[in-house]
Amino acid sequence: MLDPKSSPQGVVVLDVGALLERLRARGPRVHCITNSVAQNFTANALLAAGCVPSMTLSSDEIGDFVASSEALLVNLGTFDRERRKATERAVEAARRDAIPWVLDPVFVDRAAGRASFANLLLTRSPAVMRLNRAEFTALANAQPAECALASFADEHDVVVAVSGETDVVTEGTRVGKVANGHALMAKVTAMGCAASALVAACLAVEADAWRATVGALIIVGVAGELAGETAQGPGSFAVGFIDALHRLDAPTLLARARVT
Amino acid sequence: MLDPKSSPQGVVVLDVGALLERLRARGPRVHCITNSVAQNFTANALLAAGCVPSMTLSSDEIGDFVASSEALLVNLGTFDRERRKATERAVEAARRDAIPWVLDPVFVDRAAGRASFANLLLTRSPAVMRLNRAEFTALANAQPAECALASFADEHDVVVAVSGETDVVTEGTRVGKVANGHALMAKVTAMGCAASALVAACLAVEADAWRATVGALIIVGVAGELAGETAQGPGSFAVGFIDALHRLDAPTLLARARVT
Amino acid sequence: MLDPKSSPQGVVVLDVGALLERLRARGPRVHCITNSVAQNFTANALLAAGCVPSMTLSSDEIGDFVASSEALLVNLGTFDRERRKATERAVEAARRDAIPWVLDPVFVDRAAGRASFANLLLTRSPAVMRLNRAEFTALANAQPAECALASFADEHDVVVAVSGETDVVTEGTRVGKVANGHALMAKVTAMGCAASALVAACLAVEADAWRATVGALIIVGVAGELAGETAQGPGSFAVGFIDALHRLDAPTLLARARVT
Repeated sequence: MLDPKSSPQGVVVLDVGALLERLRARGPRVHCITNSVAQNFTANALLAAGCVPSMTLSSDEIGDFVASSEALLVNLGTFDRERRKATERAVEAARRDAIPWVLDPVFVDRAAGRASFANLLLTRSPAVMRLNRAEFTALANAQPAECALASFADEHDVVVAVSGETDVVTEGTRVGKVANGHALMAKVTAMGCAASALVAACLAVEADAWRATVGALIIVGVAGELAGETAQGPGSFAVGFIDALHRLDAPTLLARARVT
Repeated sequence: MLDPKSSPQGVVVLDVGALLERLRARGPRVHCITNSVAQNFTANALLAAGCVPSMTLSSDEIGDFVASSEALLVNLGTFDRERRKATERAVEAARRDAIPWVLDPVFVDRAAGRASFANLLLTRSPAVMRLNRAEFTALANAQPAECALASFADEHDVVVAVSGETDVVTEGTRVGKVANGHALMAKVTAMGCAASALVAACLAVEADAWRATVGALIIVGVAGELAGETAQGPGSFAVGFIDALHRLDAPTLLARARVT
Repeated sequence: MLDPKSSPQGVVVLDVGALLERLRARGPRVHCITNSVAQNFTANALLAAGCVPSMTLSSDEIGDFVASSEALLVNLGTFDRERRKATERAVEAARRDAIPWVLDPVFVDRAAGRASFANLLLTRSPAVMRLNRAEFTALANAQPAECALASFADEHDVVVAVSGETDVVTEGTRVGKVANGHALMAKVTAMGCAASALVAACLAVEADAWRATVGALIIVGVAGELAGETAQGPGSFAVGFIDALHRLDAPTLLARARVT
């Protein structure tokens, strides 16, 4: 871990405790467009972090839900004509009211239609795009090297967060690498979606999208480490992750954050 | 806790053990119209209480499922044209065969379309409406004071159950207040939906809807208290809640019920 | 348990450890058409066994997902016009690329439309059909006696696996009976769906569909037994089941398999 005071990343480390406390104090409403595999775990992760999740996908009412939220997650895990329409309305409502939103282009490496929809959504000003390495490669036609991430972030004016053993977060200039986490996180479905939802939640209480993203990934990674200390496998790990998110406090985050 | 023999509420306390035993003995089929966030937890809660859940939302076959069930839950958490049609068919099938049903008007405080559909459904003779305080306020245009609940229950000929630190259940005349429960219940998504499903289940084995409702809420509240005794956070609480529902017995209920 | 070397079943017992190791080594992609109640648990079970689940139901892209998978599960739990179309496309893609698929005709005993769709799908060459006794009776118009199962398997050229206290697996000639398992498996929603998904996963690494099915059911049953050793109820059982699947190894399987 770097000296907390000597760099942008260090400042984030110092801030992450305050970020978590703001989350709990304000309890932002986070609307999530996500697939039915991920909805329950994502809702419970948001609740454990002190937020108020909502999840409707109906295009008739999603505008009302987004308009009364403080942040929006758009996960492409559910993808059909109806969801596409709902997503467009949700993003429109978010832009109209300047509500920050996160794009999680799940499985763009598995179906061509998702990649083109993700590219369309990138023109609608998401604050952050969070994805894994294979998804980035499919979307950017480039390996997820640091310079490729930075240039993608610059071009689309979006914070890019690529998850992996070390998460990399960049908005073009600043680059943060979060080394917190646990191997079992890859064995629990919806863990990535829950991370994206927490990024959205942090955007509701931190105007600097890069800091919000680095902070959210530290929170997720440290909760994963705590869960890993007692887990007997991915089942108890998922349960322990929710417990750890709920119990997490600023001193624990500060002591455990590993950012470079 | 009041003297079990001196009041209607006391009679419910004495009865709740028998109610649970009837649930386990008869294992009623409960069809649930609920959102995909809540389906898994709700199904597991019903199974743990000895019931047989089904969850299809397809309007083509929902009539068949309801007709072969002993109770129906209608939760507005999934709300679009298709679900609306399925809901109307389900309610129609329930009324035709005199199958009791519960209305859970989730998030009527967040989207206008839900409130008007909930009002329509209130004309279709639900036995019980279970909701939280904000939802009651949105639906009834009144604070959830005891007299407002009673007058709403009278007017719509429905048992009204408003959840909170103390749950209030009234059908106009009798009022039951259930003080069982645990703070972590508010931190687990679908806990309210699971409670509504258990109300539906109890309606299948108890003809007096007010007693069924008070009994179900005692069962849910005591399971929550038991789960809270060992939970490390909301993740292990949700797991422990299902375990507790499964292990719950009549003497534990009688010893722990707190009804006034 | 029979002598591992003296019969077809014995060979399966000896093989099941190698089967599990191939699952973990190859990590097959398994696409699952399943209902939203079951998706999360099914995905976590596949991940715990070392596989890569995907779950999209959109008819626009399901062909791409199936074509890049090594096995397919078709569970009728979600059943409407849109799902029917998606299912037909998925099965078409599977057949075109010779990807083995499993049919799980959930609740055909509760709705007539499901039974006729299941019968249609049986003409599309599933490798395996896994179901419970009531579902078999509804579909075959016959009690699930061993000879009825064998004749159904013969007629439809499919491996039939009927779950129960003892699972019976037959392709007409060979019959395997798996006595592993735990009573709490019946109290966890989606346990059957997860078992069917693991059958699909085993088909991806074992060309003999009967051996793959018997092997998968041993894996599921032994994981259930291990979970049952510490479970406090169905909540902790479900968590422990995922943990046990993740930790399971060949010697444990060989020591515990009970096949006749």
